[in-house]
Amino acid sequence: MRTTRGRVLVESRLMSLERALELARGGRAAAESELLEELRIPSVSTLPEHRADVRRNAEWLAERFRSLGLEAAVIDVVEGGHSVLRADWCGDGRAPWLTIYGHYDVQPPDPLEEWRTPPFEPVVREGFVYARGCSDNKGNHLAALQAARYALAAGGPPVNLRFLLEGEEEITGPSLPGYVREHATALATDFVLIWDGSFAADGRPQLVTGLRGLLYVELEASGPALDLHSGAFGGNAPNPLNTLARILGELKDREGRVTVPGFYDAVRTPDPAQMADWDLGPAYGESLRRIMGARALEGEPGYSPAERNWARPTLDVNGIVGGFTGEGKKTVIPARCRAKVSMRLVPEQDPEAILAALRAYVAELTTPGVEISVRLLGAARPVLVDADHAGARALSAAYEAAFGRPAARLRTGGTIPVALDFQEALGAPMMISGLPQPGAGAHGPNEHLSLDHFHRGTEALLHLMWSLGQRAG
Amino acid sequence: MRTTRGRVLVESRLMSLERALELARGGRAAAESELLEELRIPSVSTLPEHRADVRRNAEWLAERFRSLGLEAAVIDVVEGGHSVLRADWCGDGRAPWLTIYGHYDVQPPDPLEEWRTPPFEPVVREGFVYARGCSDNKGNHLAALQAARYALAAGGPPVNLRFLLEGEEEITGPSLPGYVREHATALATDFVLIWDGSFAADGRPQLVTGLRGLLYVELEASGPALDLHSGAFGGNAPNPLNTLARILGELKDREGRVTVPGFYDAVRTPDPAQMADWDLGPAYGESLRRIMGARALEGEPGYSPAERNWARPTLDVNGIVGGFTGEGKKTVIPARCRAKVSMRLVPEQDPEAILAALRAYVAELTTPGVEISVRLLGAARPVLVDADHAGARALSAAYEAAFGRPAARLRTGGTIPVALDFQEALGAPMMISGLPQPGAGAHGPNEHLSLDHFHRGTEALLHLMWSLGQRAG
Repeated sequence: MRTTRGRVLVESRLMSLERALELARGGRAAAESELLEELRIPSVSTLPEHRADVRRNAEWLAERFRSLGLEAAVIDVVEGGHSVLRADWCGDGRAPWLTIYGHYDVQPPDPLEEWRTPPFEPVVREGFVYARGCSDNKGNHLAALQAARYALAAGGPPVNLRFLLEGEEEITGPSLPGYVREHATALATDFVLIWDGSFAADGRPQLVTGLRGLLYVELEASGPALDLHSGAFGGNAPNPLNTLARILGELKDREGRVTVPGFYDAVRTPDPAQMADWDLGPAYGESLRRIMGARALEGEPGYSPAERNWARPTLDVNGIVGGFTGEGKKTVIPARCRAKVSMRLVPEQDPEAILAALRAYVAELTTPGVEISVRLLGAARPVLVDADHAGARALSAAYEAAFGRPAARLRTGGTIPVALDFQEALGAPMMISGLPQPGAGAHGPNEHLSLDHFHRGTEALLHLMWSLGQRAG
Repeated sequence: MRTTRGRVLVESRLMSLERALELARGGRAAAESELLEELRIPSVSTLPEHRADVRRNAEWLAERFRSLGLEAAVIDVVEGGHSVLRADWCGDGRAPWLTIYGHYDVQPPDPLEEWRTPPFEPVVREGFVYARGCSDNKGNHLAALQAARYALAAGGPPVNLRFLLEGEEEITGPSLPGYVREHATALATDFVLIWDGSFAADGRPQLVTGLRGLLYVELEASGPALDLHSGAFGGNAPNPLNTLARILGELKDREGRVTVPGFYDAVRTPDPAQMADWDLGPAYGESLRRIMGARALEGEPGYSPAERNWARPTLDVNGIVGGFTGEGKKTVIPARCRAKVSMRLVPEQDPEAILAALRAYVAELTTPGVEISVRLLGAARPVLVDADHAGARALSAAYEAAFGRPAARLRTGGTIPVALDFQEALGAPMMISGLPQPGAGAHGPNEHLSLDHFHRGTEALLHLMWSLGQRAG
């Protein structure tokens, strides 16, 4: 009896997966218009003037999830922070829980003048949607929302679902980390899907085995008390722009090695097993170079492009402003100027130790008439992730079913701060992955997402749900 | 008879000087309100949006000069340039001509947020007028306009007067230089007063014996074709901000020596006679430091502050912008960025040779993935001026009469490009001087001018006119 009943159950489950996939294929137009609707919300978390938009995005999502039958809440965790969107669906208390993480906040859209179409007026051109946030991260979580929709319409998935979408990913905010750590028991789950990744630069779907950490600082240089005439004072005036430029120039040598004392002390080489799927030849670098549209790669000597991106820390100036920046010329020595600098960190680098070393180094490099402050804007520790558990295998198979290729086990150069909180607080097997094609332009102008990836991704998630449910059944 | 007639003439001249001075003292309130009126015109020559204001300023001046009885013309010399304002008064064809140079254009007012009151809404506080352009150069030429007014009201000065005021001083424009060189014969004059200087940092009136030249360039650095996510590409991406910062940092060493190859090759040490009035001790540096509000001076080792300012060339970054400059953080590697850099040059440095050396050096310093362009925004050769002729002595005596101190013969660190054109085309004895107190904040926020200097300056110019006329009589 039990065997027959089991077989019937499995068959009915497979039938409902087929039904869900069929619904997904029929619902593509509706899914696209829903994606475009979310992309019209300028949910820029770092800009105070978009505070209401960030909130509106959370409410919009809650409304969508409720309409599908999930229990959704917009949760304010931290005074002045952006809300956590939680949406739960529990079909069977004995079924495994799949927790899907994403974020509904986006990066600022500037430089605006480089967008071919306005960043918050999404348009579809030749199979791609163009808008700020389409690849990072709205396309990912909207595909997951669609998967939930069709799974429920087909009778419900064989897993329970929990969405945790934050509004502070781009500002490394404390709300979701705090929420996850505080409610670890209530949030107990069988699998965590950190659904904020993308395909690898070589076009393979990927399961991320490591994320770099981040240390983001602002340097402000102050020289004279007021802006000066460069003729009257040049030759005697401390010029904070000259000094800041020299310091920024000295943080990294010409070849690409960071020169902050002790910067590499804790860096370990990954073991060969971890690097099995890595493309350590020049092909990966060439695909990066093409995506970037650069004349040449620049990076630390002695390492392959994949290693430089995933296993080596780095330092970049992300912004600088000071003095006269209009058209023409103004012969001014400015009183002050500032720059934003970020470092991507790898295991076992500690952001706090690096920050202290950076502060000491900058103080040593400055000139007598220029004072430099180093203000911390954000930090996240690097993360290593096991990608050889049942959930990871199920996701790889789901990619194979929907995209025709299994997932490669690779690291990524990016940072998803909350991954560490999930890992430490919930302890569940984790999959870090995502749908955007390589070169999607996340954080830059003309960010775009393949609609083919978006739709197939919805299908891959349906496969994943049924696969995780089947295993548990 | 001749002696008696001569004595009568001299006496009547002296009487009319006394009358003019008396009128000047009585006209201070009217003079101030006229100055404020000109200061309300935002004649920023470098900004296209102020083109009409620049024109309006020229017309406003022409109107004023005409109302005094001068023949005034607003002359367009160069297509797309700003006009030359010429105003002539010829009382006696046999009297010497005094040509007064000034400029009615001003520097951009930014950073706007650092002005205590708006830059084009002049206010008077504690004896100073605050507004963009008050010290550079409207206060100077309005004092000269007042002097013309009272001289004419007192029966006319014993010299003929010619004003040549340009609208392109702050952009090193070609209009006035072209006009002076083309009409050198018609503009023949006995004395040229380059009335665009100021008092020295130590508070003395000054006769300038040398001006530094200028080479002003914009560097643009281009790396990837688009702005990149610093996580996805950091470690392999050429970052134009890092490279530009390193290059700017390497143009000058930590001690303040410019490192462009050959930069100092043509630089000569002034002979001791030229340096007789120079304060080569630490006092001059300390007065500079106080005016700047700086923690310490920074400059080339082995030279006094006066030498660094007047006899040594230097290099300053005047502006830089690139990447994300808003609040908070954005992890972007920008596609491009740019900086403005100017060099003050001393005799015998040649701007063209320095530009070529700079271009070669920058090309050598850049990194493989970053292309740097060096665009020339302006150049002016350095000038040396004899200050030991009759006109210079007359001006020094005029300062003594009006301010109680003769003029010191000093150089200045600034640049007045047209001085060289006057020198070469007209060949007349030249006086370079001006009224603003030290620390007037030319080119910076809260530029301000002592009204006491403004009014006494008017009187000094009256003394000068009568003195030059007396000599010739």
